[in-house]
Amino acid sequence: MKKVPKKIRQVQLQEKLKKDPFLTDEELSELFSVSIQTIRLDRLELGIPELRERIKNMAKKNLNKVKSLHSSEVIGELVEMNLGQSAISIFETTKQHAFEKTKVIKGQYIYSLAESLAIAVIDAQVALVGVANIKYKKPVKIGQKLIAKAEVVKKRGNNKYFVWVKIQIKNEEVFRGKFILVTFSDDKDDGGATF
Amino acid sequence: MKKVPKKIRQVQLQEKLKKDPFLTDEELSELFSVSIQTIRLDRLELGIPELRERIKNMAKKNLNKVKSLHSSEVIGELVEMNLGQSAISIFETTKQHAFEKTKVIKGQYIYSLAESLAIAVIDAQVALVGVANIKYKKPVKIGQKLIAKAEVVKKRGNNKYFVWVKIQIKNEEVFRGKFILVTFSDDKDDGGATF
Repeated sequence: MKKVPKKIRQVQLQEKLKKDPFLTDEELSELFSVSIQTIRLDRLELGIPELRERIKNMAKKNLNKVKSLHSSEVIGELVEMNLGQSAISIFETTKQHAFEKTKVIKGQYIYSLAESLAIAVIDAQVALVGVANIKYKKPVKIGQKLIAKAEVVKKRGNNKYFVWVKIQIKNEEVFRGKFILVTFSDDKDDGGATF
Repeated sequence: MKKVPKKIRQVQLQEKLKKDPFLTDEELSELFSVSIQTIRLDRLELGIPELRERIKNMAKKNLNKVKSLHSSEVIGELVEMNLGQSAISIFETTKQHAFEKTKVIKGQYIYSLAESLAIAVIDAQVALVGVANIKYKKPVKIGQKLIAKAEVVKKRGNNKYFVWVKIQIKNEEVFRGKFILVTFSDDKDDGGATF
């Protein structure tokens, strides 16, 4: 992209972020062929908070929509939530999630991110996983940012939901899982339920 | 069983615990038609520690056998370990593992128990999960004791292992999972590995 005047750049920057709120300052600086510092000043002038802040603000709003989990039980930052349809969560991996030997992120944390999102997207008070078929496609390293997308692909009967969760790093898929969930009404004792 | 003299009972008690070290004092008391207090005194006289202690002692020995994980990374108490073949781990669920709403234990903890055991049983320095097909058969409640059994059922090629993990509460199966794991040699950089 050719270098454009500040006024025009700032309008375009707002449009870009409206379409893709997860663009980093670095990505924006490449996009507009300006320095990261310039992008920061643009954001300051426009009153646009930094990426981490933007993500947190979105997550706060989306958490309120979740029915099936307490907000503290949702793993990662819930940046999109169309209850009963789809949801997106972002999770930053740290040292504590990795195997000591290999520094590869443990499957259990990737699974937990996917499972929690699969439950959160369900439009019901209580949802439990019955079956999950999952595939880890590439080892995830410490510090990599996981973007998990859940989609409700099918509903069978009154209380059975099929949810696909795909997890990417940038544009590369590192995990995919198919979950079958069962919902229960809130007031019913599900202690004896079998799947 | 008819009530038997103390001496004979104590010999039988030792034999019983040799066969099944996980018998609780309560189960032993029913078995011998005596009070729990009597069983405790028997154990005291015979120098047999209580169940929790017995489990911990076994776990300590078994942890040393594990190659693929640091001992702190194994979930639950590892009460049996035949490296490369089979392993058993015991895990007591508590409030912190449960959903706030339903008090049902979260799948992610049951999955983690199974995954960690599937990795631990592998006779290699580095093992990662590639694929997992899992089924939760019954909701697990707070306080229930999970007994996870892993079995290496197949090896394909040089570095692909098929491990089945079944988790029971008493004699009822609550979870089963099939894991496909890939091993790497210790000194090789597996950063670019794909499954």
